[in-house]
Amino acid sequence: MSKGLPKRSEDYSLWYNELVKRADLAENSPVRGCMVIKPYGFSIWEKMQAQLDKMFKETGHQNAYFPLFIPKSYLSKEASHVEGFAKECAVVTHYRLKNSEDGKEVVIDPDAKLEEELIIRPTSETVIWSTYKNWIQSYRDLPLLVNQWANVVRWEMRTRLFLRTAEFLWQEGHTAHATKQEAVDEAVQMMEVYAAFAEQYMAVPVVRGIKSENERFAGAEDTYCIEALMQDGKALQAGTSHFLGQNFAKAFDVKFATKEGGLEYVWGTSWGVSTRLMGALIMAHSDDNGLVLPPKLAPNQVVIVPIYRGDEELAKISEKAKEIMTKLRSKGITVHFDNRDTHKPGWKFAEYELKGVPLRIAMGPRDLENNTIELARRDTLSKETVNLSEVNLEDYIFDKLEEIQNSIYTKALSFRKEMTTEVNSWEEFKEILESKGGFISAHWDGTGETEDKIKELTKATIRCIPIDREDEDGQCVFSGKPSKGRVLFAKAY
Amino acid sequence: MSKGLPKRSEDYSLWYNELVKRADLAENSPVRGCMVIKPYGFSIWEKMQAQLDKMFKETGHQNAYFPLFIPKSYLSKEASHVEGFAKECAVVTHYRLKNSEDGKEVVIDPDAKLEEELIIRPTSETVIWSTYKNWIQSYRDLPLLVNQWANVVRWEMRTRLFLRTAEFLWQEGHTAHATKQEAVDEAVQMMEVYAAFAEQYMAVPVVRGIKSENERFAGAEDTYCIEALMQDGKALQAGTSHFLGQNFAKAFDVKFATKEGGLEYVWGTSWGVSTRLMGALIMAHSDDNGLVLPPKLAPNQVVIVPIYRGDEELAKISEKAKEIMTKLRSKGITVHFDNRDTHKPGWKFAEYELKGVPLRIAMGPRDLENNTIELARRDTLSKETVNLSEVNLEDYIFDKLEEIQNSIYTKALSFRKEMTTEVNSWEEFKEILESKGGFISAHWDGTGETEDKIKELTKATIRCIPIDREDEDGQCVFSGKPSKGRVLFAKAY
Repeated sequence: MSKGLPKRSEDYSLWYNELVKRADLAENSPVRGCMVIKPYGFSIWEKMQAQLDKMFKETGHQNAYFPLFIPKSYLSKEASHVEGFAKECAVVTHYRLKNSEDGKEVVIDPDAKLEEELIIRPTSETVIWSTYKNWIQSYRDLPLLVNQWANVVRWEMRTRLFLRTAEFLWQEGHTAHATKQEAVDEAVQMMEVYAAFAEQYMAVPVVRGIKSENERFAGAEDTYCIEALMQDGKALQAGTSHFLGQNFAKAFDVKFATKEGGLEYVWGTSWGVSTRLMGALIMAHSDDNGLVLPPKLAPNQVVIVPIYRGDEELAKISEKAKEIMTKLRSKGITVHFDNRDTHKPGWKFAEYELKGVPLRIAMGPRDLENNTIELARRDTLSKETVNLSEVNLEDYIFDKLEEIQNSIYTKALSFRKEMTTEVNSWEEFKEILESKGGFISAHWDGTGETEDKIKELTKATIRCIPIDREDEDGQCVFSGKPSKGRVLFAKAY
Repeated sequence: MSKGLPKRSEDYSLWYNELVKRADLAENSPVRGCMVIKPYGFSIWEKMQAQLDKMFKETGHQNAYFPLFIPKSYLSKEASHVEGFAKECAVVTHYRLKNSEDGKEVVIDPDAKLEEELIIRPTSETVIWSTYKNWIQSYRDLPLLVNQWANVVRWEMRTRLFLRTAEFLWQEGHTAHATKQEAVDEAVQMMEVYAAFAEQYMAVPVVRGIKSENERFAGAEDTYCIEALMQDGKALQAGTSHFLGQNFAKAFDVKFATKEGGLEYVWGTSWGVSTRLMGALIMAHSDDNGLVLPPKLAPNQVVIVPIYRGDEELAKISEKAKEIMTKLRSKGITVHFDNRDTHKPGWKFAEYELKGVPLRIAMGPRDLENNTIELARRDTLSKETVNLSEVNLEDYIFDKLEEIQNSIYTKALSFRKEMTTEVNSWEEFKEILESKGGFISAHWDGTGETEDKIKELTKATIRCIPIDREDEDGQCVFSGKPSKGRVLFAKAY
C-alpha cells in the first residue's frame, strides 16, 4: 500500500497530494475545485467537529443555521467586505431548467431569471447581520453568541485538497455585544479556543497573533489568528477570529437600547476554522510511510491484526482479541480488530501505517502461548513485546496513547523552534528564507508598502504580530525605519 | 408569551406558523423561500441528527461529503431523474462579480461565465454515482454504505417553514450492492430505521409503505416511505428510502467484477430525511399553549423555576436547585435552572410551556419548609406536589419522562386509529375526506389514471400501499375495477 508514496524530501507537494488520496482522505470531484471528502477523511473531520463544538458550547455559544444564498445587494453593504469577496463569488442567476427545442438536452429556462442574483455564501456576515437586526432590540438581547456549521464557496483558481478548495466545510461564529471591550474579549477568547484545540487535540503548536492590515479580514477592525508551521517550512493559517467593530452593525443598521436609555450600534465578532485544518493535521506530523494521527483525533486509536494459519488459530486469537477490546473500550479507547481473511498481515500493517493508526497490536500463536502481544507505535515506528501477565493492558495502552499525543506535539514544537530564526538584516532575511524557510522573526516599519514590497520580492508575508511579543527597539529589516518589536514572516499556504 | 397564539381549531395553518416563530424555532430569511433555523429550533434538530447518525452507524454506514454543485450534464444522465428535478433547480452561471461602470454597485462580470452551468444539488445521486464509478471495481468493494449530512436546494414556489423550503438540511444515504436482493433489503432496512426513529424518539406513529408509481422518486424502481398523520387530519411524508435498481449504475456506467469473474452493473439505494421532520414533530403533538416535545428530543427535559422574594430566598432555593440538578444529571437528565431576575415566574411558566419543556419544577419558600416541589407536566398540563422525603427524585423524574414519552406516542396513535377510515364507495370516500379527513383506506385499481383523477377531484393522493396490508378482494372505490387490497389515501403536506 504505502509503496511508492513519494518522499517528502524529494517532492513535498506531491507527497501531500498522494498521501491525501491514498490514505482515503479526499479526492478531486468532477466539479472543478470541489473535493469529495472520503469516509476515512470525514471520520477525522467528525472528531474535530465534535471537540470544537463542545468547546464552543462550553464558552456559551449555540448553533443555528442561516441561508446558503446571499442577495447580491447585501454583499455590497459593507464596502471592504464586497471588495474582498466579489472576485470569487459563485452567482445563481436562474431557478429552472427546461428541455432544449430539439429535446436532446436540458438548458436554462430564460423565463426563470431571478430578479436579483444570489451569491453562494463565501462567509455569512451579511445575511446574519441582516437577521440580527430583528433579533436585537435591547441590551437584554446581548450578548448574542451563535455559531453555524456550514459549507461555503470561494471560487479559487488554484486549488489543493483541503488547503484551498472552491467549496469547503467550516464553522463560523457570529457574535454581537453591547460594548467594544466585550467584543474584543470574545475575539481573543475564540483565538485561544482555537489555539487550545490545535495544540491539545491536533498536537500542532501555534503562534497566537494579530494580522497586519494587509492580511486582515475584509470588514474587520482586527483579525486575531493562529499560525502553524508545516514540515516544509511553510506557514499555515489555521484559524482566524475577527473583531468587527461596529462595521456590520452600521452596514445593517443594528442598534440596541442601552441600560441607560440610549441607542447604540452593536459590536461584533466573527471567527472560523475549516476543513483546511485537515491539511494542517496531515502536513504537520505525517511521514514517508503515511499519516501520523494524534490519538485524540484518530478514528481508531488501536488496531489488532491477527497472525494465523487456519481457522483454529484465528478462533483462538479472536477470543483473546475480544478480551483485549473489552478492556480497552472500558477505558474509552477506540479499537478495531481486523480479521479479514482477504488480506495478509503485512498488507494490513502497511495499510494502518498509511492511515496513521497510533498503535498496532499484532498477535500470533506464539504470543498466545507466552501471553504476549507485539505493540507497534506509528509515530516512532518502534515495536515492543508486552507481557500481559506483567501489565494492566488497558492502563498501559491508555498511558501509551497519552505519551504519543505529547510526543507528537513536542516533536512539532521542537521543529518550530528550530525553524524560527531571528534576522536583523535584509541579506540575512533573504538568505534564511531561501536556505531554511520557517518563521523569520524580524523588525518591520508597520507600513503596508513595505509589506507589499517584501511579498513581491520574496513571496514571504507577515503571518502575524505575535500576541506575546516583547517590546524591542529596532529597525525595519527592509526599510531601516524604526520599529517597536518583531513580527513573524514566512512563505505560507 | 403564549397569549395570542392562534387556536388550532380556528386556523391550524396560522397556529403552526405562529408557533414556529414564537417558540424560536425558525423564521423566514431575506432570501425568498429560505429559512433561518434559530438556536432553539436547531438544538432540537441537533438531537434528531445525533440519534439518526447513531442509528446509521449502527447499521454499518459511514459519513462522507460530496460537492454542492452538479454539472448540468450530469443531471440529464438519468432520464426520469432530470424530468423530476429540472423544474426547480438553482443554476450557477458565473463565478465573479465586478464593480459597475459608475462604481455604484457590483454586477456580474460577463467575462466570468462558466463553460458549463452548475446546478445546486437538489439531491446527490448523480454526483455520487459518478464518484462511485471510481470507487467500485470488484465485489470486494461492495457493499458501499455511505451517508452525508448536507444542505440541498429545490426551488419551491410555495414555501412553509420546515415543511417546504427552497433550501433545507437533510441526510442522504447512498449505497451500492452486488445483488438486487441486498439492495432491496437495504432500502427496507432504512425505512425501518426511519420508522423506529419516528416512533421511539419523535413519538410519532407512522405507516410503513410503498409509494405508487405516480409518487415514486424520480429515478427509483420502488420508493418505501413512512407516513405520519398530523392533528388537522392531513398526512405528512416523513422519510423515504428508494430502491434504485441499476438505473444510476447504468447512467454512470458503474460495473463490478463478480466473484464468478463476470462484469455486472451495481444495484443501488438512496434514502433521506430532512428538517421537514421538525414540522412533523411540531404538528403531531403541540397544542394551543405551544410546543409539546417528547422528552427524548427535548433540549432541556426539566426546567426549575424559583419563586422568591429577595436575594436571601433565592440563595436558599438555588442551593436546593443545585442539589436537585446534580441528582437529575446523574441519571442523564438534562435540566436548566432559570434564575433570571429579569422575568417573573408566571412569564417563565408561559415561556417554557410555549417551548415545550416536558417537566417544570417550581420551588418557593414554603416548598423548602415542607421539603416539596411542584411538578408540572407539559403534555397534560397537570400538576402535582412531590414530597422529596417520600421519593427518590431522580428515579421519579426519570420514570415520569418515560411515561410522558409513551403517553405522547399513545395519544398520537389513538388519534391516528380514530382518523383512519375504511370506505367502500366513492360517495363515502368524498364524504369522509371532507367531513373528517385523515387516512382513508380504500380499494384502488392500481392505475395512475385513477390516482390522477382522484387527486384532481379531491386533492387526496395515495400516501402509500401499506407494507403489512392484508390481501382482500375488492373493487376500486373510483373505477369499480378489481383490486387485491386497500391503499391509504389522504390530503397531504
